[in-house]
Amino acid sequence: MKVIQYTKNSIAAAVIGGCLVLLPSGTANAQKASSTEQAAIENALRKLDAEWSAAASARDLDKTVSYYSNDAVVLPPNAPLASTPMAIRAQWKKDIDSMIGGGWKPTRVEVAKSGDMAYVSGTYTFNFKDAGGKTVEDRGKYLEVWERQADGSWKCGADAWNSDLPAAP
Amino acid sequence: MKVIQYTKNSIAAAVIGGCLVLLPSGTANAQKASSTEQAAIENALRKLDAEWSAAASARDLDKTVSYYSNDAVVLPPNAPLASTPMAIRAQWKKDIDSMIGGGWKPTRVEVAKSGDMAYVSGTYTFNFKDAGGKTVEDRGKYLEVWERQADGSWKCGADAWNSDLPAAP
Repeated sequence: MKVIQYTKNSIAAAVIGGCLVLLPSGTANAQKASSTEQAAIENALRKLDAEWSAAASARDLDKTVSYYSNDAVVLPPNAPLASTPMAIRAQWKKDIDSMIGGGWKPTRVEVAKSGDMAYVSGTYTFNFKDAGGKTVEDRGKYLEVWERQADGSWKCGADAWNSDLPAAP
Repeated sequence: MKVIQYTKNSIAAAVIGGCLVLLPSGTANAQKASSTEQAAIENALRKLDAEWSAAASARDLDKTVSYYSNDAVVLPPNAPLASTPMAIRAQWKKDIDSMIGGGWKPTRVEVAKSGDMAYVSGTYTFNFKDAGGKTVEDRGKYLEVWERQADGSWKCGADAWNSDLPAAP
């Protein structure tokens, strides 16, 4: 699809003041520029996601919440939506307080052609202390939407995860 | 940010064959085109999401799974990742078989400037029959990533949800 669009739309010819001028089309240009940029963004997001996982695993609350945008929404399982920085911090504090270790790893990264939005999906494993003080492992999957900010940095704007393990009856 | 970039980059001057020619920049062009397009896409996705919810609520399995792209990933709570059309259908069959009714509604829609990716987040309420035949209500939240397909249609490429209710101990 991209190749066909590029072939059809990349060059528009116009005669202006007696000169034949080739005008690059906006759409084709954006698509042409994006494949290299998209690959670079994918690499950057994989790196950011690994750093983020390391921060959470190291129980660094300040650093963990720093990966979210100011208007991020966080969808934790078995808890209400967290849609303010304060609520997101409270959710992560609770998780980090009960967490022993673990982390997450992306399996899929898809980047919008405009390079301002992307999503990352992958798997996590975390060890927790349960209410009785016993160590339990949780494993599951996550979906993050990343958005490029006004300063060019990437922040997570929406973050959902849930367990692979069956629910208690 | 958008206004500043447009002012700076929208027009590039070039002298070709003795003529002064104004070339629209690809980046600024894509951004200029996108605000109207983004609003139209947001409306289209809200409509699609409402139709999708109605299909699920009507227990129409074929229609429900038709909203996913061929390579979609579905992240259901307390179940493994479903990353093939067959696995997605099996997951939804299980949900629809135990479901009495309900639905979901978007609260946030964000669209990439290129108009090829967007995410939708919102809340759901579903009534189920539990293992003992008792009707139970589940309410929670969801995060969908939508991607424009080669034919111009929009499909959901990644879909995660989870309950707001506390986990059973």
